[in-house]
Amino acid sequence: MTQHVDNLDCIFNPRSIAVAGVSEERGNLGRDFLAALVDFSFAGALYAINPKGGQILGNKIYGSLLEVPGPVDYVIGCIPAKLTENLLELCVQKRVKVLHLFTAGFGELDSRGAEIEAKLAKIAHQGGVRIIGPNGMGIYHPAGGISFSSNLPKEAGNIAFISQSGGNAFQAIRLGNNRSLYFSKVISYGNALDLNETDFFEYCAKDPKTTIIAAYIEGVRDGQAFIKALVQATQNKPVVLVKGGRGKAGARAIASHTGSLAGNEVVWEAVFKQTRAIRADTIEDMIETICVLQYYPKTVGGRVCIVGFSGGVGVLATDACETAGLSLPVLDTSVQEELKTFAFFSNAAGSIYSNPVDTPLVVMDRSALLRILNIVARAENIDWIFAHLRLGVGSDDFSREASLKQLAETFIEFGQAGVKSVVLVIDPTATEAYPKTVAEIREDAFQAGILVSSSFTSAAKAVASVVEYRATVLRLRNSLKSVDE
Amino acid sequence: MTQHVDNLDCIFNPRSIAVAGVSEERGNLGRDFLAALVDFSFAGALYAINPKGGQILGNKIYGSLLEVPGPVDYVIGCIPAKLTENLLELCVQKRVKVLHLFTAGFGELDSRGAEIEAKLAKIAHQGGVRIIGPNGMGIYHPAGGISFSSNLPKEAGNIAFISQSGGNAFQAIRLGNNRSLYFSKVISYGNALDLNETDFFEYCAKDPKTTIIAAYIEGVRDGQAFIKALVQATQNKPVVLVKGGRGKAGARAIASHTGSLAGNEVVWEAVFKQTRAIRADTIEDMIETICVLQYYPKTVGGRVCIVGFSGGVGVLATDACETAGLSLPVLDTSVQEELKTFAFFSNAAGSIYSNPVDTPLVVMDRSALLRILNIVARAENIDWIFAHLRLGVGSDDFSREASLKQLAETFIEFGQAGVKSVVLVIDPTATEAYPKTVAEIREDAFQAGILVSSSFTSAAKAVASVVEYRATVLRLRNSLKSVDE
Repeated sequence: MTQHVDNLDCIFNPRSIAVAGVSEERGNLGRDFLAALVDFSFAGALYAINPKGGQILGNKIYGSLLEVPGPVDYVIGCIPAKLTENLLELCVQKRVKVLHLFTAGFGELDSRGAEIEAKLAKIAHQGGVRIIGPNGMGIYHPAGGISFSSNLPKEAGNIAFISQSGGNAFQAIRLGNNRSLYFSKVISYGNALDLNETDFFEYCAKDPKTTIIAAYIEGVRDGQAFIKALVQATQNKPVVLVKGGRGKAGARAIASHTGSLAGNEVVWEAVFKQTRAIRADTIEDMIETICVLQYYPKTVGGRVCIVGFSGGVGVLATDACETAGLSLPVLDTSVQEELKTFAFFSNAAGSIYSNPVDTPLVVMDRSALLRILNIVARAENIDWIFAHLRLGVGSDDFSREASLKQLAETFIEFGQAGVKSVVLVIDPTATEAYPKTVAEIREDAFQAGILVSSSFTSAAKAVASVVEYRATVLRLRNSLKSVDE
Repeated sequence: MTQHVDNLDCIFNPRSIAVAGVSEERGNLGRDFLAALVDFSFAGALYAINPKGGQILGNKIYGSLLEVPGPVDYVIGCIPAKLTENLLELCVQKRVKVLHLFTAGFGELDSRGAEIEAKLAKIAHQGGVRIIGPNGMGIYHPAGGISFSSNLPKEAGNIAFISQSGGNAFQAIRLGNNRSLYFSKVISYGNALDLNETDFFEYCAKDPKTTIIAAYIEGVRDGQAFIKALVQATQNKPVVLVKGGRGKAGARAIASHTGSLAGNEVVWEAVFKQTRAIRADTIEDMIETICVLQYYPKTVGGRVCIVGFSGGVGVLATDACETAGLSLPVLDTSVQEELKTFAFFSNAAGSIYSNPVDTPLVVMDRSALLRILNIVARAENIDWIFAHLRLGVGSDDFSREASLKQLAETFIEFGQAGVKSVVLVIDPTATEAYPKTVAEIREDAFQAGILVSSSFTSAAKAVASVVEYRATVLRLRNSLKSVDE
């Protein structure tokens, strides 16, 4: 009798979970999984399993899955690879719905491992058990009390992350946590023996708790099905996707990692072109792009004004924006005239007021900076203000920690008003001089929904990706409209 | 009578300096210049000038340059633009050798400013006074007791930085200071009314205190002369060059900044191809590239082995290296076999030992990590080890601050032994969790001559630039040899 799981909801909302392979041995990850479920206040029944029996974290350890008294929806397998087939057979007997295999040592090792995977897939299919993994961290679903580690935030959010790598899942959740980004669901699915990227894309596309989908993918099992799922997902939700394994060595690396086939880079470029998925090169880039999607939901244009405290920095910032595909329009004449009549500007040689706006001599004065920002804010041909924060060049107040914070607060305050979309770029010299203060500034800004970046290059890249995405969406919407008419 | 300065030594080693335009007013930069010279223990005579007279920093303020009793070699002008012509004429009368004009408001403003510049150039030329600037910070020459700010390191080093931007000069010196890189001379020359990039390249190429030349250039005055000077400079010393103003808005930005003409990007690409100058896109990239030149003077090859703690991170690190032009050879079979027989690896499913080397389960053990590094060190087809440091994924020790530091120290220790060139990439999640500890690790590493980078992308870019440069140098040397034979 097959017992297929048509809806993946049971994965994220199981009634009970059993962890197989727990022990009090140092480095035992089964214990970590169990502890995380306890920490996250998983509401269903929890069971620990190890043939040796005993007690763990206040729970009885059952000698076998079959000894567990109640029904078990979800099993986490932290057992050696050679015992996996047996565990799976017990899952079938116990009518378990999902087996998550943390266990590695299958298809990523050799062809023998791939054969075992195929055999497991067959047993699972016939027995009606779905498999996540092997070689993955499984599920992080804070709203449902499920996590693969205690050391992760308990806050639930609106972002889904479908990740073939457990390490990258941790990185994304942690980077997100420091940027006020929280997750609806994170799935680390490893070798994708059974459930794969396509299944999870289909699920997340429909999941009402998810408004943004992110993914790290090394290889896909079924290209046609995947593209179909991706197209569907991108129709309603922005998708930010990192494709791992671009070159020759990259392809070898992913074969060793998850036993995946990288696929041709040319094909992947076509995938990004065909679908509306936004490409990011690294997990950091992915998170910055999500910040832009989340913090500035309504900003459509790509016209930037740079406000900073050095002509040279302004020039390189301009280069970074233009290279990324953003534009830096000359400020309206009326705005320029107003800046010119502003005392600081008319007196201060070395000031630049066309765009970038360079304000070297106003740096000591918070209200002067706010006044400048308010003048720039009236420029109708500007969508974004990229503000630059760095150490001063003289013995002026600006070189001091307190002043840095004051200026940062001025930018944040102005950004919160929402007239223009403000991005804050903090120079590494400032971060290296005052790491604690900059950490505080970052926290304040991220909580206010203002992206902080450590370089114009990465800020411009993230903003440009989103601007391009929104332009495509608008174009498609308009073309559909004209078809309707 | 003309009195040309043939040798620029007098700029860097004047017998006396006068600062014109000092006052105790808030934000007066003249006072900062004077204070910096005092702080840097400038050994020659120092004079302060302001028509209002008075006292400053224990010095008498002279009413005019002509009132100064002794000879004056070097004048720093912090006066309004409209008084500049008069000051220059006084310099001619006083037989001053060099006038540095901090003053801005000339060619970068409008065509009228450009006309004034031309007039000043004529007076200076006829009167035998050389001019640095206007609109530049001037000279930082710590060995000679000259600095344009008190807030800069007093240590002298081997790097010259020729910068058209004062802000970028500050940034480079400060970033360098945190990376054990120190400067022989830094010149912030602004609008280049008289002395320009070509003069400074010629000087630095011959300067025995300078072994590496860096430059930030917006536009050049005489293309032919510049290329000749650049070719000559690159013949004996590596040159790392940032060209500001790539696109349309970038060209506008540099016109507003230093009144320069950007020149065509295509032409600049040809310049980089024709000369051996290494191109960097940002000041941060420039400094990382200099770190690679300085820390790893003998590493010629571009073969990298990645050692880290996550398969997914290893994949993206591989992509970053390959994209930058570095190779990731498969480790010698004997090395792989040794890693395989190593207990941690044979037991730990999920480990990868071909390259990247992924060591998830040894993270708790410092001696195990050292043993792994020593095995990898025997691989003859590897020049570089890129080590990755990040937070752990379980409740293991590795997630803790102390452990992070221990592992970092292991990498640093191994790097110091010098068998392979080690670069440390510290994940932003680690930096965000433990900013203070990571700051300490960075300091330790930089002092040990080990590059620390916050991403594989930037580390790979810096290393690849230097590897390419050294390959070109070797190729040219070999072709010259074969001509000799």
